[in-house]
Amino acid sequence: MFAVLVYDVGEKRVARALKTCRKYLTWVQNSVFEGEISEVNLKKLKAELKRVMDEDEDSVIIYTWRVQRYSSRDILGVEKGNIDLFI
Amino acid sequence: MFAVLVYDVGEKRVARALKTCRKYLTWVQNSVFEGEISEVNLKKLKAELKRVMDEDEDSVIIYTWRVQRYSSRDILGVEKGNIDLFI
Repeated sequence: MFAVLVYDVGEKRVARALKTCRKYLTWVQNSVFEGEISEVNLKKLKAELKRVMDEDEDSVIIYTWRVQRYSSRDILGVEKGNIDLFI
Repeated sequence: MFAVLVYDVGEKRVARALKTCRKYLTWVQNSVFEGEISEVNLKKLKAELKRVMDEDEDSVIIYTWRVQRYSSRDILGVEKGNIDLFI
């Protein structure tokens, strides 16, 4: 299936959350990730994120689609996802 | 069509960007909005956002789907979109 994930996590946990999401999805920009993912990997991703995040402070939203990716994706302004922080 | 919008704008412009997005979409959490929107209103929204944002610093990503909303939406942690900042 196709997934779009957006996180909002405290600064201290951002690096780990980013690393976790990038294991399974493509980083689109800042806090947004997307990609094809299996049911099994989505479960793994959720479990790993729950270990990284503070569930009383942070939030993560995950949309999934079984049929199609999307009809269009428009980016206004800066495309931040292409910058690799770890290089 | 159904749209999911995520913004990442500088602090000074957040209040105006939030207000603009809420005119057309439902606030899901922090920087995430979703909802049914017409082609015409999507154009208006983009034009209004471009006036609010700094296109060299900020970014907005808009996904649209013509066929279906989504298969699932999971929220981990806090549901921040329900808090109304303006009350």
